[in-house]
Amino acid sequence: MSNIRHALTVKREDDFAAWYQAVIAEADLAEESGVRGCMVIKPWGYGIWERIQRLLDDRIKATGHENVYFPIFIPLSNFEREAEHVEGFAKEMAVVTHHRLIGDGEGGLIPDPEAKLEEPLVVRPTSETIFGDAMARWIQSWRDLPLLTNQWANVVRWEMRTRMFLRTSEFLWQEGHTAHATAEEAKEHTLTMLEVYRAHAEEDLALPVIAGEKPENERFPGAVETWSIEAMMQDGKALQAGTSHYLGTNFSEAANIKFQDREGGEKYCHTTSWGVSTRMIGGVIMTHGDDDGLKVPPRIAPYQVVILPMLRDKPEDDALLAYCEDLRGKLITESAMGEPVRVLLDKKPGKAAAKRWNWVRKGAPIVIEVGGRDMENGVVSLLRRDELWNEETGKPAFQAPTPAQLTDEIASMLDSIQAGMFGTAQTWRNANVMSGCTSFEQLRDHYSDGKKHVGWVEVQWSKPTGQELEKVVEKLKDLKLTIRNVPMDTPAPTGSCIFTGKPAVEWIYVAKAY
Amino acid sequence: MSNIRHALTVKREDDFAAWYQAVIAEADLAEESGVRGCMVIKPWGYGIWERIQRLLDDRIKATGHENVYFPIFIPLSNFEREAEHVEGFAKEMAVVTHHRLIGDGEGGLIPDPEAKLEEPLVVRPTSETIFGDAMARWIQSWRDLPLLTNQWANVVRWEMRTRMFLRTSEFLWQEGHTAHATAEEAKEHTLTMLEVYRAHAEEDLALPVIAGEKPENERFPGAVETWSIEAMMQDGKALQAGTSHYLGTNFSEAANIKFQDREGGEKYCHTTSWGVSTRMIGGVIMTHGDDDGLKVPPRIAPYQVVILPMLRDKPEDDALLAYCEDLRGKLITESAMGEPVRVLLDKKPGKAAAKRWNWVRKGAPIVIEVGGRDMENGVVSLLRRDELWNEETGKPAFQAPTPAQLTDEIASMLDSIQAGMFGTAQTWRNANVMSGCTSFEQLRDHYSDGKKHVGWVEVQWSKPTGQELEKVVEKLKDLKLTIRNVPMDTPAPTGSCIFTGKPAVEWIYVAKAY
Repeated sequence: MSNIRHALTVKREDDFAAWYQAVIAEADLAEESGVRGCMVIKPWGYGIWERIQRLLDDRIKATGHENVYFPIFIPLSNFEREAEHVEGFAKEMAVVTHHRLIGDGEGGLIPDPEAKLEEPLVVRPTSETIFGDAMARWIQSWRDLPLLTNQWANVVRWEMRTRMFLRTSEFLWQEGHTAHATAEEAKEHTLTMLEVYRAHAEEDLALPVIAGEKPENERFPGAVETWSIEAMMQDGKALQAGTSHYLGTNFSEAANIKFQDREGGEKYCHTTSWGVSTRMIGGVIMTHGDDDGLKVPPRIAPYQVVILPMLRDKPEDDALLAYCEDLRGKLITESAMGEPVRVLLDKKPGKAAAKRWNWVRKGAPIVIEVGGRDMENGVVSLLRRDELWNEETGKPAFQAPTPAQLTDEIASMLDSIQAGMFGTAQTWRNANVMSGCTSFEQLRDHYSDGKKHVGWVEVQWSKPTGQELEKVVEKLKDLKLTIRNVPMDTPAPTGSCIFTGKPAVEWIYVAKAY
Repeated sequence: MSNIRHALTVKREDDFAAWYQAVIAEADLAEESGVRGCMVIKPWGYGIWERIQRLLDDRIKATGHENVYFPIFIPLSNFEREAEHVEGFAKEMAVVTHHRLIGDGEGGLIPDPEAKLEEPLVVRPTSETIFGDAMARWIQSWRDLPLLTNQWANVVRWEMRTRMFLRTSEFLWQEGHTAHATAEEAKEHTLTMLEVYRAHAEEDLALPVIAGEKPENERFPGAVETWSIEAMMQDGKALQAGTSHYLGTNFSEAANIKFQDREGGEKYCHTTSWGVSTRMIGGVIMTHGDDDGLKVPPRIAPYQVVILPMLRDKPEDDALLAYCEDLRGKLITESAMGEPVRVLLDKKPGKAAAKRWNWVRKGAPIVIEVGGRDMENGVVSLLRRDELWNEETGKPAFQAPTPAQLTDEIASMLDSIQAGMFGTAQTWRNANVMSGCTSFEQLRDHYSDGKKHVGWVEVQWSKPTGQELEKVVEKLKDLKLTIRNVPMDTPAPTGSCIFTGKPAVEWIYVAKAY
């Protein structure tokens, strides 16, 4: 039993949901805004999002896409155009009905009845239809294909139950929209973007994910195929962290996106769409956080190194600051993972220990304290967030490198933190997937004996469709389970489906999910 | 008389407004979306905005600000809180009144009457009030000050007459919001950000601007001081390209933003706000564009060099492409203005001449054509967008450097284009400011003789306020003129006010404006 006194008052083991909220508060990532279901993303949380944006945007551009910007408002008639879309999205949405406020004569304001819109406008929940309208204008011939676009934007889905980062009425995301000449090319592109998401999640966010196809019942409305990456949180639940859709000609037919092929014939384009959102930050928290707060992978940390001079409001402070400035100057000229090292010298007023724990809770990968004694000894006191405690003593595991040693080692230290975080998460994930489940009873037992955090189960199934699938979904729903996806590149199953008893045709992951 | 055949069919001289629309269309910057007053920003237009964002964001961060994100929806009651704000902004705004759509029973959709919001939400026209709510939560003591925040966001102001980039219902911008302990510090910060905008406009966008204070009647509602940067367009009109506001304690008192000072007393914070928007792109078009289309300053050009291989669908294409790839590889390892040179090798199908003119109209700073003969001679055919024509021959002024020469000279060539564009615009701007105007009659004559594009007039005035100012504003309005701003750092005036006849206290710029 360790005598470590962790930085948070609530532990993952005790109340995972409360722990999640505590990390967000203590790491100062975001807070409720007072506007229903919307959050304020604070500097450290937004800084992580900026890093995610920069890295994912580079990957999206490297695969040939160009960024654009489409209106936030979508005419109501766009949603009427397709019955399928109406069934899918046209439910909880923010609807703009008026374009003016006027005084109510009593010091208050009301929507001006004279300024009612002829056609209401919907605040975009996603932009397939309005991109579709433009694609129909932009595409004439095969020469205009493929059309590869992406936008970074805010979207709104009116949510009844919200949870910060995971499900908020407004959220930030990127949405890619592409048009292709053939089904084959569009399907291939759907998988290219799925692979971009997998690489981004694993290499940038250190989130091990399973890439695979969603079952029919989990498809995006209007999609022919929906693919996802799924990550396991520390409570064993799955988080869908990104999706990529092959839309066939469904949206093309609705918006009339046609092209003249090389032979002069007119054809509908095949389209795709794919998105990743601020939800990713929820995934980072629940994968890497611990009882001391957040742990940010170095690649997406706004600052990878935070230097805390132990100032005492005395004349000696000048020398200490100079020592720290010098260290910062050396570190920022170093490169780690292909970019200059990001270093903050935090000179804000406050007690040294309080500031240290503040940065530990925020999850800065490396925290460096420098006091008078460190300076005299020509060293610094370094804490790695991923190796925070000396398990024997129960004290923080400070190292004491010289500035020169630290400068030499910073790149490999950050590499090792990034790789270690991924490795730890992957090992843990793999250990929490139950394989060898051959019956529905076994599945039920696994989840129904009151155990917490039991992870995922890998089962074989016969890929039922229609009503047969609905029965499976209902059965799983009783256990609060869902089918996550069909993992790619797995060997052909040899047994029988645990739901239907028929010969199995593929593997699926089953789990509780966010 | 030159026999040059320009790339656009409409000339600035003939119809400036039509020319502006033609540039936007021909340079493929943006288009009407079909949603009232909203535009679609296309890849080349959005690429320019991304460059503006990157460069301005760096400047905003370098002055100590952190980015955050606030909800797009602002409760109606926030606008009711302050009478002044109600008078100012609470007019044309997009109002969300419902959170659900339902079928109308006839295949259409309507806002669900059961899902009417108790309190309508306004799509943010600007975010002072909602930032204010958070500042009141975040600030307790002097230690929390200054609080320096910024957000990049979309905002909506319902506009009756829209013009792409200049005035659209939805636009993109950054809005900075800061809180300070004293009036002096807040005023100083207002000017710091004005200077950031001036430097960004002049150094990044090559837009010469006049920085100065707006007169009382042009202040942002709730501001104590409003400062602006003003640029002169080629039709002589002024474009307000950015504003910085000192808000005093007006918003602090409304939102209760208080802090405990070092002596333990409780005080209201002094706040500032400042913004720059996609309107800047309109300024770039109308400052640098010419009868051949757009001219993008190298610092904000998504691609600074576009290489066009003259492909012929023949086996020789491979060697030509290799030659071009090699050139691209050499150029992108060069640095210009502190960043790697941005180069596009455009291999899209299409005729060489059509592609050349396409990139000329888009305003890429340097266009390089490479044909078989160029390759044989070991050169390339280079066109500088800022020196497009040989005035004597009326033909494009191609240069023929070797790849090695070009690689050596690329940085200084881009420097010289950037500096030349600024210099040309500044010389032209200065030549179109009339000074020495000593009477209102002179001012009237200057604008009322049917001349086009007569620019600005610099006059002395007595800085009237209240009703006396209103009279001046009315008099100017009859001439379709407005006071732009009071330029900084000008010598004290020695004459009398051309409006009131009283002794003048400062200089102002008067102009027609967008």
